[in-house]
Amino acid sequence: MTKTPGPPLLGIDWGTSNRRAYLLDSEGNLIRRHDDECGILAVAGNFEKSLADLLARLELDHADVVMSGMVGSRNGWREAPYLPVDRPILQLPEVMVEIEPSLANVRCRIVPGYRYDDVHGTPDVMRGEETQILGALALSASSGWFLLPGTHSKWARIEHGTITEFATFMTGELYALLSHHGTLATLMQEKEPVPAAFEAGMKAAQQSGFTHAAFSCRALVVTDAMPAAHAASYLSGLLIGTELQEIRYRTNDQTSLAVQLIGTPELARHYVDALEFFGMTAVMWPPDDVYLAALRVLAGINT
Amino acid sequence: MTKTPGPPLLGIDWGTSNRRAYLLDSEGNLIRRHDDECGILAVAGNFEKSLADLLARLELDHADVVMSGMVGSRNGWREAPYLPVDRPILQLPEVMVEIEPSLANVRCRIVPGYRYDDVHGTPDVMRGEETQILGALALSASSGWFLLPGTHSKWARIEHGTITEFATFMTGELYALLSHHGTLATLMQEKEPVPAAFEAGMKAAQQSGFTHAAFSCRALVVTDAMPAAHAASYLSGLLIGTELQEIRYRTNDQTSLAVQLIGTPELARHYVDALEFFGMTAVMWPPDDVYLAALRVLAGINT
Repeated sequence: MTKTPGPPLLGIDWGTSNRRAYLLDSEGNLIRRHDDECGILAVAGNFEKSLADLLARLELDHADVVMSGMVGSRNGWREAPYLPVDRPILQLPEVMVEIEPSLANVRCRIVPGYRYDDVHGTPDVMRGEETQILGALALSASSGWFLLPGTHSKWARIEHGTITEFATFMTGELYALLSHHGTLATLMQEKEPVPAAFEAGMKAAQQSGFTHAAFSCRALVVTDAMPAAHAASYLSGLLIGTELQEIRYRTNDQTSLAVQLIGTPELARHYVDALEFFGMTAVMWPPDDVYLAALRVLAGINT
Repeated sequence: MTKTPGPPLLGIDWGTSNRRAYLLDSEGNLIRRHDDECGILAVAGNFEKSLADLLARLELDHADVVMSGMVGSRNGWREAPYLPVDRPILQLPEVMVEIEPSLANVRCRIVPGYRYDDVHGTPDVMRGEETQILGALALSASSGWFLLPGTHSKWARIEHGTITEFATFMTGELYALLSHHGTLATLMQEKEPVPAAFEAGMKAAQQSGFTHAAFSCRALVVTDAMPAAHAASYLSGLLIGTELQEIRYRTNDQTSLAVQLIGTPELARHYVDALEFFGMTAVMWPPDDVYLAALRVLAGINT
């Protein structure tokens, strides 16, 4: 008996500013990749039209479409309510939210994000990162802390395929804001990558909170203890060190922690240095690899 | 024997963006006040010309000019090197840096700032706040913590007229950056002063570091736990609470701390609420009063 091939699989990581599409054949092989800037802000509500254009561009007249990221937020195509963290990650294929677009021969589903309320009842949220974590687990990542660096860095602790806690840090956004506006930006006319300044920033993160330590970036320069060209590396070390300091605190100072790091080489590099400085190690997961692995699980393709 | 009256006294609090001038007669009575936007950035190096214009505007052909603030920084008129904190504040009159402008009958001095190296060797700096503290001490402020809120909030601990430590927090600047740019700013289309949200922000500051807690501002809104219009108050409480949490930590949780607060009513109000929430009390010192008191001490006028 010959198995009828299923439709091609189109995975879309649809974020606020960008959209990354991955086209796979029905056996899960990557055929084509297409990135554009049609994030949910640019699409401005015309999601069906935007998807139809994308399908036309990829010359698809039928497809199984699986979407993750901000497309499932309140400002996206359809709100896919946040899951509580006790819902196992491997159950994501069963809880996708189905949209019924008027496009013929197109099945369309959105992966929901997660919500976590900490011990004080303060919520945190993720959308998109759950898909990356699913992929890493499918590729046999161990339990423990997962780190997804970026504009809003996410740290998630996974035990037996279930998130037990997670925390977001505004690291990338604060770096961008402070290096483009205000007092510290005026110091950063020149930016050199300086390992010693990055390390000094991490040390400062171990000694005081961010809103005070950030000013030391300026105080070091005006007292001639640091050249202005080192300020950007110092700020980067301070922000990343602040994350690690808080995670170490949450982990009761386990110094031999291995962290599953899902990030582009450019972002990951700084974190690898920082993890080493804090006595931790990184297990690297390339973002495209984990995304494709997740997509196959979500679409039910056995590879 | 009749005492010859001295020259009029012109005090200038000359900052980065603004300049506040106070004209006193030789007996220390305030005659006139003049504020403008001729901060050191706007003056662009032409300090003598800028002072000559100010004297002309105030119709002065002779004066004793005492300046404090960023005018004494490297980017100011003349660098007045930072004093180490063990130099008593009441000795400031003896260590002013004299400039000799080509203006006839004008004596011109700059009050130096202070530098403090913390136990880890990390420097912090102040310029201008030392003058305010001098004035409060002249008006009989007690020893203990002094708080000068603003773009860069300063906390200084004074014992027997000498600074023993101080710390700067980028509170006002981070509030301005985050409420005008980026993820949180998009929530803050409407801003209501909401005491409960301010308090929730202070609680969040007690529970985690700023770079994580700032994201909870967004998570609370997207999970419908807080209306978007409350986000600004929450962020304000979080930033101010972060200061108090760190000061409380440095003070070994002394809960009945009285803080000498030098700030405008608008800024002071939030801090008074926050101090009360943290079990501390505020002793209020109006900024103009302490500045004028400092000026009289600096110029050697006995009142």
